[in-house]
Amino acid sequence: MLEEPAISVPQTRRASARRVTGLSNPLLKVFRHALAEGVTRDGWLGIEGPNLLEEALEAGANVTVHSVVVAEPAEEKFRGLLEKLPGECEVTKVADWLFAKITQTETPQGIAALVELGGVDLDPLLDRPGALLVVACGLQDPGNLGTILRSAQALGATALITLEKTVSPFNPKAVRASAGAVFHLPVFPGQEARPLLRRVRDAGGRVVAADQRSTAKLSEADLRGPVALLIGMEAAGLAPEVAAEADLRLSIPIRAGTDSLNAAAAASIFLYEAARQRRFKY
Amino acid sequence: MLEEPAISVPQTRRASARRVTGLSNPLLKVFRHALAEGVTRDGWLGIEGPNLLEEALEAGANVTVHSVVVAEPAEEKFRGLLEKLPGECEVTKVADWLFAKITQTETPQGIAALVELGGVDLDPLLDRPGALLVVACGLQDPGNLGTILRSAQALGATALITLEKTVSPFNPKAVRASAGAVFHLPVFPGQEARPLLRRVRDAGGRVVAADQRSTAKLSEADLRGPVALLIGMEAAGLAPEVAAEADLRLSIPIRAGTDSLNAAAAASIFLYEAARQRRFKY
Repeated sequence: MLEEPAISVPQTRRASARRVTGLSNPLLKVFRHALAEGVTRDGWLGIEGPNLLEEALEAGANVTVHSVVVAEPAEEKFRGLLEKLPGECEVTKVADWLFAKITQTETPQGIAALVELGGVDLDPLLDRPGALLVVACGLQDPGNLGTILRSAQALGATALITLEKTVSPFNPKAVRASAGAVFHLPVFPGQEARPLLRRVRDAGGRVVAADQRSTAKLSEADLRGPVALLIGMEAAGLAPEVAAEADLRLSIPIRAGTDSLNAAAAASIFLYEAARQRRFKY
Repeated sequence: MLEEPAISVPQTRRASARRVTGLSNPLLKVFRHALAEGVTRDGWLGIEGPNLLEEALEAGANVTVHSVVVAEPAEEKFRGLLEKLPGECEVTKVADWLFAKITQTETPQGIAALVELGGVDLDPLLDRPGALLVVACGLQDPGNLGTILRSAQALGATALITLEKTVSPFNPKAVRASAGAVFHLPVFPGQEARPLLRRVRDAGGRVVAADQRSTAKLSEADLRGPVALLIGMEAAGLAPEVAAEADLRLSIPIRAGTDSLNAAAAASIFLYEAARQRRFKY
């Protein structure tokens, strides 16, 4: 009979995952807060579900996955995903009922993570020759903001900026609607309008407002060169005092008698028109 | 002293509104079903809130408002709206708690209606020289479908058609996201793909598929003349067997490494490109 080895062979990281059994655990409290509010007090994102985690892992150096909680019954299903986690990432196993307590979703997906987005400076982005900044001004619907973030990333924008009094791009619904774009596109939340627009102009950019009250057509404007594109609120559109700051106010010609487009649909159309004029050179 | 008149002077219709006090009332049962499912067994739409009701009233001959239920505390607030109702429209007052019982929304808006959409034939629409049909193929998210409906109406589409196994355009969330477009744009739900596409071609139309797997660019295709535009599902895109039926498969060029656009954003971009090429002649 073989002797038990004195020192156990190095276990795989997964085998050494911690197990937590109560909601009083400080880490689970942090997760619960982050999955409700979108971010921890340190600004780390709380994300749920294998798709978002996969996107975070694929985003490379800009995103660090710090901590993962997995529901025990889902562990086997997510084995492949768990094996892709970096060595420094802490993994915690919990019972199903406990996982359900930390999430806000009706059908918990069994895996959640805390991820940190790398810090990026806005100024060098403003200086890029073909900079295309999307500035969300007052939007309240996180689904709309997330969809705009997704379109912005797909259609070649340089960054997404949100003004004060705009829903957070780190709101869990916004992150979900962004389908992972939040891990790829630099995001600058809560900026003040005037200093921001001054920086855009100082860097040689033009400020273009999506404004359905304007008679100047989107399709007839030149959107090449550095541009900051202002997108307004859902129902009311762009606030007049913000629209007044723009160099150019453009509308999408719509059928008479119709009110407006959905804010995310309108933003996506503006981004497409800019991308088309720039010959889709991303 | 004046004598009481033998016959009372004609009361305003609003004063004669019925009052119902229990959930066992058959009309309230019909409302509850219609507000949950979107439609009554007769195909009338159940809608909630002053904005949608206003849109229905403004849609003219195509829409008949048959019955309105108003929560008593909201009656005063909605007086202007109630006065716009046609004479034949039945108005029922209920207590607040009873109104809350018939709606699905978390914050009931205090007014709901049953409305009938006028029947429209598809064939004459197909025959229009610049017909632009939007065909939703398998979409499951009612918010996306409603947003597509809104963009289709705003950007000059002739009709919205949904294939089998696609979320209903009369789903309450779709109706809400359509922002009233469902009252203006002819809608044909639950069609079979092949017979429909045969009718499109018999009428001289081309079938164009939004298909991100294609290398042919949306911006380089000619979208003038009668077109049926196929829009696929959220995650999987257009089913290959449906895409194979198309005369033309077109993609929106997106940044390398990004997955796709939101289905409603993509549909809105296709509709914009078609409208742009048609010089926004709606």
